[in-house]
Amino acid sequence: MRTLIKRALSSDSSLDTITIKGWVRTRRDSKEFSFLEMNDGSCLANIQCVADAGIPGYEDIAKMTTGAAVGITGKLVESPGKGQKWEIHATSVELIGEAPADYPLQKKGHTPEFLRSIAHLRPRANLYGAVFRMRSRMAQAVHRFFAERDFNYVHTPIITDSDCEGAGEMFRVTTLDPAKAEAQQFENDFFEKPTYLTVSGQLEGEAFATALSNIYTFGPTFRAENSNTTRHASEFWMIEPEMAFCDLQGDMDLAEEFTKYLVDDALNNSEGDLDIFARFVDKGLLERLKFVSEKPFQRVSYTEAVEILEKSGKKFDYKVEWGVNLQSEHERYLTEEHFKCPVTVYNYPKSVKPFYMRTNEPDEKGRETVTAMDVLVPGIGEIIGGAQREERMDVLQANMAAHNLSEEDYGWYLDLRKYGSCPHAGFGMGFERMLMFVTGMKNIRDVIPFARTPGSCEF
Amino acid sequence: MRTLIKRALSSDSSLDTITIKGWVRTRRDSKEFSFLEMNDGSCLANIQCVADAGIPGYEDIAKMTTGAAVGITGKLVESPGKGQKWEIHATSVELIGEAPADYPLQKKGHTPEFLRSIAHLRPRANLYGAVFRMRSRMAQAVHRFFAERDFNYVHTPIITDSDCEGAGEMFRVTTLDPAKAEAQQFENDFFEKPTYLTVSGQLEGEAFATALSNIYTFGPTFRAENSNTTRHASEFWMIEPEMAFCDLQGDMDLAEEFTKYLVDDALNNSEGDLDIFARFVDKGLLERLKFVSEKPFQRVSYTEAVEILEKSGKKFDYKVEWGVNLQSEHERYLTEEHFKCPVTVYNYPKSVKPFYMRTNEPDEKGRETVTAMDVLVPGIGEIIGGAQREERMDVLQANMAAHNLSEEDYGWYLDLRKYGSCPHAGFGMGFERMLMFVTGMKNIRDVIPFARTPGSCEF
Repeated sequence: MRTLIKRALSSDSSLDTITIKGWVRTRRDSKEFSFLEMNDGSCLANIQCVADAGIPGYEDIAKMTTGAAVGITGKLVESPGKGQKWEIHATSVELIGEAPADYPLQKKGHTPEFLRSIAHLRPRANLYGAVFRMRSRMAQAVHRFFAERDFNYVHTPIITDSDCEGAGEMFRVTTLDPAKAEAQQFENDFFEKPTYLTVSGQLEGEAFATALSNIYTFGPTFRAENSNTTRHASEFWMIEPEMAFCDLQGDMDLAEEFTKYLVDDALNNSEGDLDIFARFVDKGLLERLKFVSEKPFQRVSYTEAVEILEKSGKKFDYKVEWGVNLQSEHERYLTEEHFKCPVTVYNYPKSVKPFYMRTNEPDEKGRETVTAMDVLVPGIGEIIGGAQREERMDVLQANMAAHNLSEEDYGWYLDLRKYGSCPHAGFGMGFERMLMFVTGMKNIRDVIPFARTPGSCEF
Repeated sequence: MRTLIKRALSSDSSLDTITIKGWVRTRRDSKEFSFLEMNDGSCLANIQCVADAGIPGYEDIAKMTTGAAVGITGKLVESPGKGQKWEIHATSVELIGEAPADYPLQKKGHTPEFLRSIAHLRPRANLYGAVFRMRSRMAQAVHRFFAERDFNYVHTPIITDSDCEGAGEMFRVTTLDPAKAEAQQFENDFFEKPTYLTVSGQLEGEAFATALSNIYTFGPTFRAENSNTTRHASEFWMIEPEMAFCDLQGDMDLAEEFTKYLVDDALNNSEGDLDIFARFVDKGLLERLKFVSEKPFQRVSYTEAVEILEKSGKKFDYKVEWGVNLQSEHERYLTEEHFKCPVTVYNYPKSVKPFYMRTNEPDEKGRETVTAMDVLVPGIGEIIGGAQREERMDVLQANMAAHNLSEEDYGWYLDLRKYGSCPHAGFGMGFERMLMFVTGMKNIRDVIPFARTPGSCEF
């Protein structure tokens, strides 16, 4: 029976016999014995194994090079070395799979670009193993958070016939042969109409929230935007909770609680993975995570935020004035310099937001806002965007008309307001955005197992 | 502060004040008071509320019809009625959103076909609320099962440039305008090559298993098959664990443990939802679930299974002989009639299985098998299919050649055998198949929030 190295390293006591299986990170030989640093991906740490010359399997020791798969059976004993509690004194070793001399991860110091080109081997590198364990941990924490709060997980559809907010650049899904003229005839397509990859599960999530009360989605979403930045991918995962009988306050409460929960989970349970990020990726990481964990979130209206920015005396690349969307530099000024804490900005100008957000009473100057809210954290800016939804049929219809959306296409969405309508609210968190925040990784391509970006769909 | 009805009904004690918000299921009026049966989707059960004439909000009572959104504040007191522990004596009621007379869910007894046509309202029906709460519970149980066993969750890509097993019917993903001639030129497409929706995350999962040891995927997969059956959907969710240093035995162990875990979770924690399935959908449901929960799984080789079927004296629609794939009728005979317990069949003929399964030594008759395994349960047949993978480079290359797969396309997959190759194994469970098993629902369209099938992509 094989023991994961993570379990071996956290053993309560020495063990007379243990078997680990994994991959050689390094090996050092002397005349009488060899030291093998073994890793099986269950945690960042290696376990050191001492193999005396002459034990069964030792005849293959020269082939147990970096990257080779090896099994080791022996005693788990206290390690005299520093930084490790346990090591294994092998009674036998087994070469399971060799790694020839051209194994690309033999040497350290590869560029992220090179490692992206070997994404199938990349998780064997210490840093990327840590990234993808953190990705798993955060995803499991998302489900735990919502399960603990009686939220139902809903799988909203990936293939859709609507383009949601009219957001624009979507991928088309088809079975038509593009080389044939029939490709023009959507009635010949698989779904007998044009279909696309979803950009958001929110609207369908609203249908389920107005039946089950509290729901969330967690699934892949897509953008066919031709933008090659470090923050955009064509395929990414999004978390979208939606709550019936909930207003903007309740929405902001949940968003802040959720953000802190994920950050705390990363801080409390990362089993060493955070160390590698803090040491090699981002020296300020732990400080920034603790900042979000410990500081209360400041809430400020958009109007107040604009006043603060205008009075700041700071020179921004993008000019601030009431009516424009906040840019990342503005968001970061608010959280990093002005408030020095995480900030939730609410009540944005109606003109810059989608049709489904709830319209507020005009302010004293007659300006129209909607119940949008964004959660801002240091180093990243917006990590969550949400809103209370428009539950009033007549106001929603007017908003749709203003956005040139047909009531026929959205008949089912209007039904949610026709039958037992209620105030409801939700938000979206880009999962990769959150991962970049908790790992410090600077390029979204480096937190996705196999990233899809314009011109790039490998593996 | 609103309390979910699920929480109110499981209260330890009476409460002086409580507020619930939800939708009216039924209302009965007398001269002095009204009874409202309220449901908020948090559980199957309604809570009964008694509202005396004249309390604040009572003037709207006539508008509190089936489907209307209503808030009720009052005392939580012991109910004299049978079948319910608690009821609410209202001190005020609030009409939140009316439901006009054409609300489609007023009457019971709609056909599944009609309810599919209102999939956005369907989760408000008792049966479908229960189905989608069960879907959520099972999905959360999937993550808990793997988290408890140190498996890392991997998001394998949805958009892919490979067609996996050459399985055939895939959806194409494109940003080309089908009405233009350029559509033929893949180098002009978004990813500069033809791309598709994934049919399985297994191959990418293998890359992560050979780095992190134990991983699983849980995400949407797609088939563009033009088959309109009760068991096929074009978009469905699949769970695919993969384990390094694991053989067929370990794979079967995990598959059986996983199946029992999900069934037990449904049996132990369904908060009344199972009742509605057992009463209205499938009278034999509980018996069948207990059967899987309690009985050990029988393991039988394909060769033995064929002998049993041949000797059964049973007349099957599809003839059984060594070398053919087992049909559903054969699978059900084995589990329901012959063994009377769940059955795992292993070592299938090589000719009927994909290229990546591990080739066994030929048997005494020289017949070639691979380390495939299927888990069979009563009423459904196959619920899991898996295999130990071929880890030997030369054998894998020969299998690929026999399947006309190019080594260039699968270079990265071969790398996993070139560098530190190890025995590894995994399986796939169709999530909807499992849901049909635990709910008794007979049509896959009725366990998917918004089902996608040939010619049908609504909402």
